[in-house]
Amino acid sequence: MSVVPAQFADLLERPLYGSLATVSPAGKAQSSIMWYVWDGERLKFTHTAKRQKYRNLVANPSAAFSVYDPENPYRYLELRGVVDEIAPDPDGVFFTELHTRYSASFPLPVSDFPDRVVLFLRPDSAHSH
Amino acid sequence: MSVVPAQFADLLERPLYGSLATVSPAGKAQSSIMWYVWDGERLKFTHTAKRQKYRNLVANPSAAFSVYDPENPYRYLELRGVVDEIAPDPDGVFFTELHTRYSASFPLPVSDFPDRVVLFLRPDSAHSH
Repeated sequence: MSVVPAQFADLLERPLYGSLATVSPAGKAQSSIMWYVWDGERLKFTHTAKRQKYRNLVANPSAAFSVYDPENPYRYLELRGVVDEIAPDPDGVFFTELHTRYSASFPLPVSDFPDRVVLFLRPDSAHSH
Repeated sequence: MSVVPAQFADLLERPLYGSLATVSPAGKAQSSIMWYVWDGERLKFTHTAKRQKYRNLVANPSAAFSVYDPENPYRYLELRGVVDEIAPDPDGVFFTELHTRYSASFPLPVSDFPDRVVLFLRPDSAHSH
């Protein structure tokens, strides 16, 4: 059973832009605009193992995600939970899937594929409006 | 001098919807979609003194804000810093200013005005793309 209210599931299924919040080892907040895919249980994000957000999540897996409906910004959803898996994506397979899903017009950044990872956020609570 | 790059200042000046990340006393991330006003030095948000985000900020003033350009989501801005002031807004004056700025169609929630506060986020770094 998902914690996501059915009437807000479209916000996870559409290729929108959400914000991922993490916490640094020093206890400071960080917030980044992200692509994502929802697999029915977890949100998946692409990232690299060389950036601050990765180091944050290795030290503290707590994460929160918020997204609004661009057609009605008063419809929004927040998910809180933990990143319970970080998987390597050395061939950029998941990155390429997102690049297609979001119809990105820029070239694939193949030079950073060796450092690419997939973050899996498992929500344990949802807040919607 | 503001840390905000001049070519991204429009993202703060337009009435867009951003995400505010805070950290709970237990070290957990939280992310909320927010209205805001930029006064040239600080981002101002409306909130109430009865909610988790308020308790988070009283315990740990670290905060981060991210916003993207709905007309070009690959233009985005993150600000990190601290909430260095929380001011009471018992008559909902700031709430009402935001309600007008965002052309909100719902009635003013006057019953929660006594608990309304203004959060002031002073950024110490900016990340843009």
